[in-house]
Amino acid sequence: MLLEAVYHRPRLNWSYAYNESTIHLRLRAKKGDLTEVFAFAGDKYTWDTTKELIPMTLFTSDAMFDYWECASVPIYRRLKYGFLLQKDNERIWMTENDFQTNRPENPNKLFEFPFINPVDVFTPPAWVKDAVFYQIFPERFANGDPSLDPKDVQPWGAEPTPTNFFGGDLQGVIDHLDHLNELGINAIYFTPLFTATTNHKYDTEDYMKVDPHFGDIATLKKLVDLCHKRGIRVLLDAVFNHSGGTFAPFLDVQEKGEDSIYKDWFHIRKFPLQVVNGIPTYDTFAFEAHMPKLNTEHPEVKAYLLKVAEFWITEVGIDGWRLDVANEVDHDFWREFRKVVKRANPEAYILGEIWHESAPWLEGDKFDAVMNYPFTDAVLDFFVHGSLDAEGFANSIGRQLSRYPLQASEVAFNLLDSHDTPRLLTLAAGDKNKMRLAALFQFTFMGTPCIYYGDEFGMDGEGDPGCRKCMEWNPEKQDRDLFEFYRQLIQIRNDQPALRTGTFTFLEAGQQGSKIAYERRLDLQTIVVLINSEETAQTFRIDVDERNWENLFTGDTVRTERGKLIVKMPAYGFAILKAIV
Amino acid sequence: MLLEAVYHRPRLNWSYAYNESTIHLRLRAKKGDLTEVFAFAGDKYTWDTTKELIPMTLFTSDAMFDYWECASVPIYRRLKYGFLLQKDNERIWMTENDFQTNRPENPNKLFEFPFINPVDVFTPPAWVKDAVFYQIFPERFANGDPSLDPKDVQPWGAEPTPTNFFGGDLQGVIDHLDHLNELGINAIYFTPLFTATTNHKYDTEDYMKVDPHFGDIATLKKLVDLCHKRGIRVLLDAVFNHSGGTFAPFLDVQEKGEDSIYKDWFHIRKFPLQVVNGIPTYDTFAFEAHMPKLNTEHPEVKAYLLKVAEFWITEVGIDGWRLDVANEVDHDFWREFRKVVKRANPEAYILGEIWHESAPWLEGDKFDAVMNYPFTDAVLDFFVHGSLDAEGFANSIGRQLSRYPLQASEVAFNLLDSHDTPRLLTLAAGDKNKMRLAALFQFTFMGTPCIYYGDEFGMDGEGDPGCRKCMEWNPEKQDRDLFEFYRQLIQIRNDQPALRTGTFTFLEAGQQGSKIAYERRLDLQTIVVLINSEETAQTFRIDVDERNWENLFTGDTVRTERGKLIVKMPAYGFAILKAIV
Repeated sequence: MLLEAVYHRPRLNWSYAYNESTIHLRLRAKKGDLTEVFAFAGDKYTWDTTKELIPMTLFTSDAMFDYWECASVPIYRRLKYGFLLQKDNERIWMTENDFQTNRPENPNKLFEFPFINPVDVFTPPAWVKDAVFYQIFPERFANGDPSLDPKDVQPWGAEPTPTNFFGGDLQGVIDHLDHLNELGINAIYFTPLFTATTNHKYDTEDYMKVDPHFGDIATLKKLVDLCHKRGIRVLLDAVFNHSGGTFAPFLDVQEKGEDSIYKDWFHIRKFPLQVVNGIPTYDTFAFEAHMPKLNTEHPEVKAYLLKVAEFWITEVGIDGWRLDVANEVDHDFWREFRKVVKRANPEAYILGEIWHESAPWLEGDKFDAVMNYPFTDAVLDFFVHGSLDAEGFANSIGRQLSRYPLQASEVAFNLLDSHDTPRLLTLAAGDKNKMRLAALFQFTFMGTPCIYYGDEFGMDGEGDPGCRKCMEWNPEKQDRDLFEFYRQLIQIRNDQPALRTGTFTFLEAGQQGSKIAYERRLDLQTIVVLINSEETAQTFRIDVDERNWENLFTGDTVRTERGKLIVKMPAYGFAILKAIV
Repeated sequence: MLLEAVYHRPRLNWSYAYNESTIHLRLRAKKGDLTEVFAFAGDKYTWDTTKELIPMTLFTSDAMFDYWECASVPIYRRLKYGFLLQKDNERIWMTENDFQTNRPENPNKLFEFPFINPVDVFTPPAWVKDAVFYQIFPERFANGDPSLDPKDVQPWGAEPTPTNFFGGDLQGVIDHLDHLNELGINAIYFTPLFTATTNHKYDTEDYMKVDPHFGDIATLKKLVDLCHKRGIRVLLDAVFNHSGGTFAPFLDVQEKGEDSIYKDWFHIRKFPLQVVNGIPTYDTFAFEAHMPKLNTEHPEVKAYLLKVAEFWITEVGIDGWRLDVANEVDHDFWREFRKVVKRANPEAYILGEIWHESAPWLEGDKFDAVMNYPFTDAVLDFFVHGSLDAEGFANSIGRQLSRYPLQASEVAFNLLDSHDTPRLLTLAAGDKNKMRLAALFQFTFMGTPCIYYGDEFGMDGEGDPGCRKCMEWNPEKQDRDLFEFYRQLIQIRNDQPALRTGTFTFLEAGQQGSKIAYERRLDLQTIVVLINSEETAQTFRIDVDERNWENLFTGDTVRTERGKLIVKMPAYGFAILKAIV
């Protein structure tokens, strides 16, 4: 055994309460090294009558490691535990401090999960597991009320620039709710709606007011109510890391300098406020002078922002917040934020924008999920860029699953593009086959998929400003086949609980390979997905137990022969096969 | 390189803010595997002009791993980073997801410390680094007011039982403050003082009242004031995991069952409250029926206990809390507790009782320190039981240092015995040589040492009740030599900042060895400690840079010869040598 590769530690993804009665334990080992692993667990106060060996299963792998997992439901909510590692006939016991060949006789030196206290259990809202999100950049979705247009508004569909305006607004969204229902999504994520100077509105001027170019609070309330009637939830974007340069307290500091009563609302390194060689004398988002970083530790700032967080939930009924640049704001603020938000709406979804590994924010006291860009990268690298082979893709996905508690993976915000990236179709160099396969994986994987507005019609666009083009409402320019593909994909996901919350296991993902197969399993339901990511036909031969399968896209029946599912798949072909029981 | 052994992750001990400007990064590797390690770090928004290679130093090791560390003071408080691993001529770059042979060209895929927000920085009170604690079990320290004696009080010095009483009280402590000043300690940790039925008082009946057998709030206030005048701080014991069986709300539940308005103050699994085959039908500490677990999530319980926490600080002026069975109480409660306590006294010390690895409680939002029983085990195993050799001891100490952020190690509560263990002298089978060496290490190591009352006079005793004997006040039965040893040891520690906050490095700790040498270094001050844990004389040959040394116990001078410090040490001999600059 390579004991140096073995890792376990209480906390984070390694040992956590999955719900109020269940503890998940995980252990890392060198890939392929261990043949069996057990947790050796019991109640420390009645060890002799409760201790047991719980078999662990290999729940995921990455390039270098296997990750083993088990669940325990300890009767008194306390768990003392170690591990028994086996490699063929070799047996090693792992305690908190050591590896040893003898079974630990008393539990004192083992690891400990002291007590499952419900308040500490990470419990994301259940509805998110079943959600399909649709991201709207409001300035570019639809112009429903030209009376609100900014001046110098451009004709709908003209070339976007970083600074121009097209008049998109909330009425425009209201006008097109049928489209969203037809597509089948059940949640919208809006980039910022509050008053700001830019077209993207990430420079908030007034957190308590809908931008007048978008509408007013009454329109927003109407929109949210209509959405709710149609089974669509609404997520707004909270930009709390920084304000805009026209935020009144910042203007006051700019004007009065050290005499401003708001000077501690920001992080001023040196007065006067100025930009020297491109670097502001105050902290900002990146080095953007018009995005001064808010001092979220300041009691008044905190009270103000928490009031904002609560207001839009209680007054307008939104279903959660997406948090911009969430990693740069203090943890203490987010803990209070969660309490305020969940008190206002226990089912609210809190989604942080974090691009790197995010376990510290996904422990139950801060966010429910983060924007899962590592997922994005893996999917694009395999299906779109071809820079990962099937094995490398499975390793990337496996690494992702190993990093977070299961409840976080179940509600991870899995996107393939956004207002911050080039569009999926452009990344795929216009190849809709590749685009479809990427989306297919997104919708048949654990976590919450999100479609960026217009992708369903085959819109393209490079990074900002290209990805922020006006929504294509001309039916002749909409790719209705692609729309139909998305519609059907969403329908299948909505119909099949196993695709949402079933276990996820790769069945095929070979070195140099360009085809993958994976299984989703929930209770008695088994679904196998086959994807050929090659421009040549390939044949799958997958070991399975089930006899008969229904192709959920075509309705065809597929049969297992001698324990093998043998399916010839055309170039860029795919199938979602459901076992018939 | 054995890349499977390499470990780093943002958060916990691996990446943390040491203060408001400094980030510490740590990386684990197989012991002896890497020859050089660098952090590759910079500001992500101005990567090209800020990126640098920061050399890491091997700061500690354990049996299987080396731990490398560096500090960075990022100008904009943000740090994006990876690592460069070197083994002779082999170079590997480590990103958040992969190992690679090419230098990462852009920072996107590196690890990230997004921003140092001061409120998140773990800042234990500075005074604790300089504290020497003395633990008092009040019922057994001194009887200063016989009018308060419980009935059936036993003659002072009679055999203790789990249930008998001797009349120790707060006036007794007041009467003996001279003793504590003579010894040189500057902080007292009292086991519980509040009204309770037992002699140990861990079954609180009234959290707002000093136990009448000990005195009243006026006496406590007088005691605290007198201590403060003498430069001694006072820590009380908060038993918030459970109450006593006579706590009024619990009595109410016992009497009224499900009709009690206090029924949710506890964790009742099933009414009526009873004990079936030794297992109460409600959650308790262990399975102690008279110690019902408090529901610390309940708003009223929380408000009540937080009021208690605040009251004794603001009304009596105590300097902090030791928290009983702290690991079984919810994290959310402790976060609020910290806020309340630090608001009442920003310099208060919060010390949790946790016996296992405690990193999740030592991140800045809960405790300042835990009772460092893993330290206790290592010291006893080497100096007292002889079950660890010098190398094993160094590995245990190294593992401890690797697990926590530096600021936690600096204020760790390092005890060798307590009311919960046999006394040190008894563990040493009466061998005062071994006892002295254990204490010598305790007082020359990083962290806050604590003496259990009476150890300084050579008191012995098995586990409870033996370790809770009456304090020996008869001068003829006190070991004055031992007292003098402790007094001098404390004096040396108090005089030498390097012994308190200097770096700690083993210079000698050999396999099968029974002698150790280590260095403490702070600025220009260097101290080397030599300890011979064998009943035979041994000679040290230690490579050092400094020429002349003062033996701080004897005042003798020792000289380095040809770069080596050569010292013959008698059986159980020791020396604290300070470099003369």
